[in-house]
Amino acid sequence: MHFATMSYKIKSRIWIESNGEMFLGNGCVQLLKAIDEIGSLNKAARSIGMSYKKAWNLVDAVNNKAKETVVLKSVGGKDGGGTELTPYGKELIRQFEAINTKTISFINQLKGIE
Amino acid sequence: MHFATMSYKIKSRIWIESNGEMFLGNGCVQLLKAIDEIGSLNKAARSIGMSYKKAWNLVDAVNNKAKETVVLKSVGGKDGGGTELTPYGKELIRQFEAINTKTISFINQLKGIE
Repeated sequence: MHFATMSYKIKSRIWIESNGEMFLGNGCVQLLKAIDEIGSLNKAARSIGMSYKKAWNLVDAVNNKAKETVVLKSVGGKDGGGTELTPYGKELIRQFEAINTKTISFINQLKGIE
Repeated sequence: MHFATMSYKIKSRIWIESNGEMFLGNGCVQLLKAIDEIGSLNKAARSIGMSYKKAWNLVDAVNNKAKETVVLKSVGGKDGGGTELTPYGKELIRQFEAINTKTISFINQLKGIE
């Protein structure tokens, strides 16, 4: 490849820590968004190629570390129960994505690396 | 822990891709900075707890993918040869760290997550 055609691109990733521990990262956000769309933990995990066990653990961890409940798991009912985000969970995702988008925009308007 | 004492902190990481491939990440930057300080690949790797093999591979990869040579490995001489950054390599690190610092400042002045 000719050097003249090469281009560097700055990439970024954000995550949220709570009291110094990992609280909310990209994988968890993708899972929570899928839960919000699909309403089932099992189907949400499958839709993003995540094992049910890992998804269950992520949901448990985020619920345990958050200031308020993020994900509600309801059991029973005619469809065998569902999984949904609380209003707090939805707001958390909205804030995470807003910060991520702002950060990417910020980086993209920098001069970049040469 | 009381919820009132909990605090969320947004963290970020940047890396640089070249033509869609990983080019320069945090580990490599730490290694290059150590090389710049110490002048020896072996000692630089040891100083950041990285194996010599991994350090050698990182240096090879960054040299191969960069627009210009980043690291010079000189062989021989009374001290058995040394390793140093080129002016281009120093400038690359300077630019990476400037962008990283600006990104962290940008995120820290955002309202944050509640």
